[in-house]
Amino acid sequence: MPPFTETRLRVRYAETDQMGVVYYANHYIWMEVARVELCKARGFSYRDMELEDGILMAVAESACRYRAPAHFDDEIVIKSWIEAANSRTVTIQYEMRLADSGRVLATGHTRHVFVNREMRKARLPKKYFAMFGIPARAGEHGSPQSHGDTEKAESQWTTA
Amino acid sequence: MPPFTETRLRVRYAETDQMGVVYYANHYIWMEVARVELCKARGFSYRDMELEDGILMAVAESACRYRAPAHFDDEIVIKSWIEAANSRTVTIQYEMRLADSGRVLATGHTRHVFVNREMRKARLPKKYFAMFGIPARAGEHGSPQSHGDTEKAESQWTTA
Amino acid sequence: MPPFTETRLRVRYAETDQMGVVYYANHYIWMEVARVELCKARGFSYRDMELEDGILMAVAESACRYRAPAHFDDEIVIKSWIEAANSRTVTIQYEMRLADSGRVLATGHTRHVFVNREMRKARLPKKYFAMFGIPARAGEHGSPQSHGDTEKAESQWTTA
Amino acid sequence: MPPFTETRLRVRYAETDQMGVVYYANHYIWMEVARVELCKARGFSYRDMELEDGILMAVAESACRYRAPAHFDDEIVIKSWIEAANSRTVTIQYEMRLADSGRVLATGHTRHVFVNREMRKARLPKKYFAMFGIPARAGEHGSPQSHGDTEKAESQWTTA
Repeated sequence: MPPFTETRLRVRYAETDQMGVVYYANHYIWMEVARVELCKARGFSYRDMELEDGILMAVAESACRYRAPAHFDDEIVIKSWIEAANSRTVTIQYEMRLADSGRVLATGHTRHVFVNREMRKARLPKKYFAMFGIPARAGEHGSPQSHGDTEKAESQWTTA
Repeated sequence: MPPFTETRLRVRYAETDQMGVVYYANHYIWMEVARVELCKARGFSYRDMELEDGILMAVAESACRYRAPAHFDDEIVIKSWIEAANSRTVTIQYEMRLADSGRVLATGHTRHVFVNREMRKARLPKKYFAMFGIPARAGEHGSPQSHGDTEKAESQWTTA
Repeated sequence: MPPFTETRLRVRYAETDQMGVVYYANHYIWMEVARVELCKARGFSYRDMELEDGILMAVAESACRYRAPAHFDDEIVIKSWIEAANSRTVTIQYEMRLADSGRVLATGHTRHVFVNREMRKARLPKKYFAMFGIPARAGEHGSPQSHGDTEKAESQWTTA
Repeated sequence: MPPFTETRLRVRYAETDQMGVVYYANHYIWMEVARVELCKARGFSYRDMELEDGILMAVAESACRYRAPAHFDDEIVIKSWIEAANSRTVTIQYEMRLADSGRVLATGHTRHVFVNREMRKARLPKKYFAMFGIPARAGEHGSPQSHGDTEKAESQWTTA
């Protein structure tokens, strides 16, 4: 599987603000666009995972560092890759660059917990393990390494 | 000056996604709403600071931890306060709760650098020091404590 | 029942674009905010209508005329009222003004069809008739006046 | 010049709402994406027109009819074309379809007035006439046909 995926998009007028640059929350929407393509590049459709398996990737944490502003009509290239994953949680990293100059605009990450349609924590079905780069036996025997950050997930996303 | 400001808003339908909860990027828009009210509570208008002094607060960093989902028509209370500030940069913290139950939905922060209309780094005018809780002499003699995180700002926000 | 409802909101920085004014799609989000408050003023919660009765108001048509630009931090007053309604469809009108000067910024309307959770056309339950100003006997005998624009709805919103 | 332009985009998760379909205001953002590509297809960059000539296309009117809902990850094709134009105002039409089935999702239009950076009405520079399909002599002699809807524009967009 390729170590990362590249996604391209063009800055919309709607995404700018009166500062003349892209409003800071929109970088998180771009991360989502990259994330959906990352799933496709790794062999599955996020849409189908939701529709057919009832598995959703709720966001538990997000962060972004802005290094240079993006402007209307700029073409942006977003590199994204899976930083860590187990059957409970996955962390994805993003790097956004100007397509023209290669200049880094922003870097960030999102951490997700797998939940069902009722927004309760769920385990990722085995058939997706390889696509997330999770060892096949992870989750079977409760091995410490595969559950490394599950505890963190527990504390972040406590549904009713 | 009060240690923090409270802002109330109601979740818009537009802010939800097909998961049935608020889309994760919208919490950053709520932080902005809280930030603008925080400025007002501290005695100045962010709008006027931009219009009259040409000082803008560009976002250099943002982060959010999501603890529970927010739903359409929920009333949200956002507590915000200045975590650190000097003449170059300011960090603001946010805590979002359900107004009804007091349940914490999310916490986060934004770090800003002061820039001029050309998006180049600028120093905050003295008249705003007290409003940001910056000691009056900060920035005059280049005291280390007041410039503590300026270096970090330099590396985050390098405009052309 | 009051002839119209007034809703107040303050322009968010996120809602501006690089033209320095509110981006034109955001007026439709303001209409939604006004619409939700219009429902409350008329005695019901749109949230509950969706949750408890499974009745949704899908948008079949929307339009807006922009007369003057809105700016960041402006306070906006939105007057909204029901223009026409029957058990199949409802049309709502909106007028947006600057709170300070009373200047009209925009006028518009949305037309909705009642649908169920599967997005198929549905009839509004009788208990909501009075709230939408629909005569109690409308829909019973297929009287022409109450079904005036149903045909139009049919052609606009044809779900699979 | 081609009679219309086709633009493709994929529905973002951010664009859906809790109804499970695309929120109605987002169709106007798609119109903008199509409009920017329409300009490019006709030989100019809207970005440069703003930056270099200080001419902006303020929206005076927008409307949309929704015929079928769009879903997350759907590929959308937007056909757009200039309906009418003179040196003061331009009207653009849009038709949005599902790329897969060709099903029409929505149709709409936007009407724009040319303004300068201060948001005051301006005349489109001659060099853009051909690109908007305006006869070369239009605007010179005040011929009635070329100024057909200018009066309407006057009443819609009255800046201070």
